[in-house]
Amino acid sequence: MARKQGSHAEITGPKVRQAALRLFARHGFAAVSMRQIAAEVGVQAGALYLYTPDKQTLLFDLMRDHMEELLSDWQVPEGCAKLALEAFTRHHIRFHLARPELVFIAYMELRNLEPRNFAVIEGLRKAYEDQLESILKRGVATGRFAVPDTKLATLAIIAMLTGVTTWYREGGRLDRDAVEGIYWDMVRKAVAVE
Amino acid sequence: MARKQGSHAEITGPKVRQAALRLFARHGFAAVSMRQIAAEVGVQAGALYLYTPDKQTLLFDLMRDHMEELLSDWQVPEGCAKLALEAFTRHHIRFHLARPELVFIAYMELRNLEPRNFAVIEGLRKAYEDQLESILKRGVATGRFAVPDTKLATLAIIAMLTGVTTWYREGGRLDRDAVEGIYWDMVRKAVAVE
Repeated sequence: MARKQGSHAEITGPKVRQAALRLFARHGFAAVSMRQIAAEVGVQAGALYLYTPDKQTLLFDLMRDHMEELLSDWQVPEGCAKLALEAFTRHHIRFHLARPELVFIAYMELRNLEPRNFAVIEGLRKAYEDQLESILKRGVATGRFAVPDTKLATLAIIAMLTGVTTWYREGGRLDRDAVEGIYWDMVRKAVAVE
Repeated sequence: MARKQGSHAEITGPKVRQAALRLFARHGFAAVSMRQIAAEVGVQAGALYLYTPDKQTLLFDLMRDHMEELLSDWQVPEGCAKLALEAFTRHHIRFHLARPELVFIAYMELRNLEPRNFAVIEGLRKAYEDQLESILKRGVATGRFAVPDTKLATLAIIAMLTGVTTWYREGGRLDRDAVEGIYWDMVRKAVAVE
């Protein structure tokens, strides 16, 4: 019995999350009801509560898992700051291009997180920004980079790279590798010593 | 009588737009009703229709006026591409920092525009991007800039600069002039000839 419930949860749990993600991205968190999510999954509204206590938890879980995956999906390379910055740039673009709906929600629905949940997501975002800032500081310390303010450069680079998700279309003029290369060229020069 | 109606419209019209902007930014377009907007303004729901035919028109007007103001608020300086790029960078940051709610809506609510309205907003955005791209092309043509892809550089620079609105707080560590200067330093280097 426990085994069977587990199997159901394994199949339906991810479906619930996918349905919530799709509906939140299309209509916005505030405009979507648990009833709509249940209809999208194809279960009764009451059955949803086997998988999540409420809509806020669904939103929070999506945003937290997104950030935790972003943090665990790569390791900051040791050594040369320039190589580390290139690895960060290429990974950031690849990771976010693969998840445009999560990127949209992660930015847009921050205002709908309850304060305690907001603090957790803010902490994870800060941890990610710290990874980039530590690379920039290492490059400044070794004289490889010239950055007047590593905090602002961190935020500027992340905004620039994440922006790719707003215009990139598969099968367009440039493939992902070409886009990564062009953005890396701009990031590299933006922090270079002149 | 006509005079009096005109005076009312002059006062209430902007109030309706301000209320709509505030509520859309806080809750999202789809979650806000005309009744809520009327309550925020302090008029009966029926009275709203003196000022706007519907909620879609309110959203479209906000987004169109925002883009038209952005386009008319400055002129691309002739001559030196580097000076023009600096003027663009500083103006973009100043203009958007003064309107964080409009920036948020202009990105987030594109999905809620009806196709005909979406096409108009897309056209205005394209016209604005073309201003920056023409500066970059001019710099490349005169050998002042090295930009492998002026279209991508345009989108990258705009995303980077607009990102300031997500973190800037009045009275924080840096004032607007300092932020403009730091971002201009990064933009200048990102397109520079090495």
